[in-house]
Amino acid sequence: MQPPPAEPGMREEEVDTPALLLDLDAFEANLDAMAALLAPTGVRLRAHAKTHKSPVIAALQAARGAVGQCVQKVAEAEVLAWGGIRDILVTNQVVGARKLARLAALAAIAEVGLCVDDPAQVAAAEAAAEAAGRRLRVLVEIDVGMGRCGVPAGPPAVALAQRVAASPHLIFAGIQAYHGRAQHLRAPEERAAAIGQAIEAARRTVEQLRQQGLACPIVGGAGTGTFLLEAASGVYTEIQAGSYVFMDADYARNQEAPPFRQSLFVLATVMSVAGDGICVVDAGHKAVPTDSGMPLVAGRPGLIYAGASDEHGKILVQDGPRPALGEKLRLIPGHCDPTVDRYDWYVGVRRGRVECLWPVAARGAMA
Amino acid sequence: MQPPPAEPGMREEEVDTPALLLDLDAFEANLDAMAALLAPTGVRLRAHAKTHKSPVIAALQAARGAVGQCVQKVAEAEVLAWGGIRDILVTNQVVGARKLARLAALAAIAEVGLCVDDPAQVAAAEAAAEAAGRRLRVLVEIDVGMGRCGVPAGPPAVALAQRVAASPHLIFAGIQAYHGRAQHLRAPEERAAAIGQAIEAARRTVEQLRQQGLACPIVGGAGTGTFLLEAASGVYTEIQAGSYVFMDADYARNQEAPPFRQSLFVLATVMSVAGDGICVVDAGHKAVPTDSGMPLVAGRPGLIYAGASDEHGKILVQDGPRPALGEKLRLIPGHCDPTVDRYDWYVGVRRGRVECLWPVAARGAMA
Repeated sequence: MQPPPAEPGMREEEVDTPALLLDLDAFEANLDAMAALLAPTGVRLRAHAKTHKSPVIAALQAARGAVGQCVQKVAEAEVLAWGGIRDILVTNQVVGARKLARLAALAAIAEVGLCVDDPAQVAAAEAAAEAAGRRLRVLVEIDVGMGRCGVPAGPPAVALAQRVAASPHLIFAGIQAYHGRAQHLRAPEERAAAIGQAIEAARRTVEQLRQQGLACPIVGGAGTGTFLLEAASGVYTEIQAGSYVFMDADYARNQEAPPFRQSLFVLATVMSVAGDGICVVDAGHKAVPTDSGMPLVAGRPGLIYAGASDEHGKILVQDGPRPALGEKLRLIPGHCDPTVDRYDWYVGVRRGRVECLWPVAARGAMA
Repeated sequence: MQPPPAEPGMREEEVDTPALLLDLDAFEANLDAMAALLAPTGVRLRAHAKTHKSPVIAALQAARGAVGQCVQKVAEAEVLAWGGIRDILVTNQVVGARKLARLAALAAIAEVGLCVDDPAQVAAAEAAAEAAGRRLRVLVEIDVGMGRCGVPAGPPAVALAQRVAASPHLIFAGIQAYHGRAQHLRAPEERAAAIGQAIEAARRTVEQLRQQGLACPIVGGAGTGTFLLEAASGVYTEIQAGSYVFMDADYARNQEAPPFRQSLFVLATVMSVAGDGICVVDAGHKAVPTDSGMPLVAGRPGLIYAGASDEHGKILVQDGPRPALGEKLRLIPGHCDPTVDRYDWYVGVRRGRVECLWPVAARGAMA
């Protein structure tokens, strides 16, 4: 683990770089905004910890009404459970006896669930739960348009749910119906069309399950780009948004972008001004991953982060003065989730001062 | 830090995933091959630790004749120095008083150098070295075609070198002349043309420095894609290749690719076979960064890793049987450097058995 790049009380300009900066006012406003948006719908928030990887942030979400957390990985579930979170859903298949044993062990201290899309996964989860002497909650994942994981909606989902329900150490808890690709469709009507299909697939599956006597306490899915659609559906019961706490450059490119503020930044230092019309910062793609495009320079639209190598970011000065050598710039990450996972520490800032250092406790928790 | 995904003696199939696998036979063959290729040239190897981030690997390179290590970051230099490496060059500008103080402190236990491309950097390095009561070696970086850092070759470099030489706590040690972009030009003639220009720029600068009475014990640069050109130049004295120990899918796309074996893999597990004609593995772009393209599936040309989301890799089954649920696949990373930096452990394997677990000691060392 790397030493923290700052201490409480420092001015932001004193923070060593690259650093993962969290603007606490914007972050708290986002927490409040999500709670306010969901309150009238009656739909629950089960926030996704794949984004923040922090029991501290999970607790702040719980304090505003989140019923639990989602994770993608067993190792993330461990960090949350050991950090005091008591309701955790792995929104993913868990394959491998070692992973399943670790997950089942967590059921001693938390409500724990996972997803399945294959009968063999049901059998393996049952065996792990039985060995641990615990019960695991299981959601059947249906493919609602991503073409990735999940069985088809309708009868295949019902058949798999019946296997779950027939397993003595498993509890059939509902369906997982997440459409990840829809989050980043740019036009609102494209997102509405994609989520409309997801809603119909979920509705049909829930209805067919009900006909077989299987209730769905959880119909889970939705992300920061579409959650208002799922929340208004009358079908989804839990919203799994994660990025809303931070936002990023890619979500900001959505037309009618999500109603949240940018709270997450990578603070970088200008390390070279030797080239004509450029400056170079000390944050390349190791510091600010580019899978969803280049970062933006906050508050400086004339500065274009045009190229990321491992440890260098090349910034074109298209308008305004060139930043000085040693000047610190706030970068808006292209994609918040992998960016957070690069760092050991959040540096929480408010009104120009460092207020807190929170560990990114599940950094690298890929197992 | 995450727990290791394996124990010595395990079979490879038992390793938990995602895991960073190092094929020790191929890795050692690469170490030997580089030593053999450079021996007749008389040019020294100063291997780049930005790739491997490991004092263990640095020591193995030293045992085969490497004179020292390169790093990009002060935090990497610390990990190497505290791990026993005694000659370390930061092939990069170091900007910020805190970073410079940390680097100067290392000069108590190692030969330490850094690069400059601005007079203000020279003054700051001199101040830090004086405060520490140490001397730092300084290379002047020249831009040999990347358009990133570095002063122009010739008179601007000479002027900066004279400033260094006039600084009582700095030692002018030569020039840094690295052409990163040239490493991945596909055609050998393109690489030769780019490096030919770099060699001429370096030659001219060395000659002009000599006329001013400034010798260049180090003329450093070159990477895995071009090092034979620099080594044959009669100008470069140190080769800074890093990736040769591991290789990756991007280097393999070069025509007349570097003469090294693929030794680095990400081991992944098939976690879903629910979709038609696909399987999904538990390694997305958090586990195998895609900045230089998608990973390949080792030994399975009919399997196309076609899409990476945060924690999922979607593999199209174009030819041959679909892998079974739970089957483990070796992925060849698109780009070795950022992939290594995602992991806490190397899992060294030989003939199907885990032989060692080496920490990626400078994982996340971005400061």
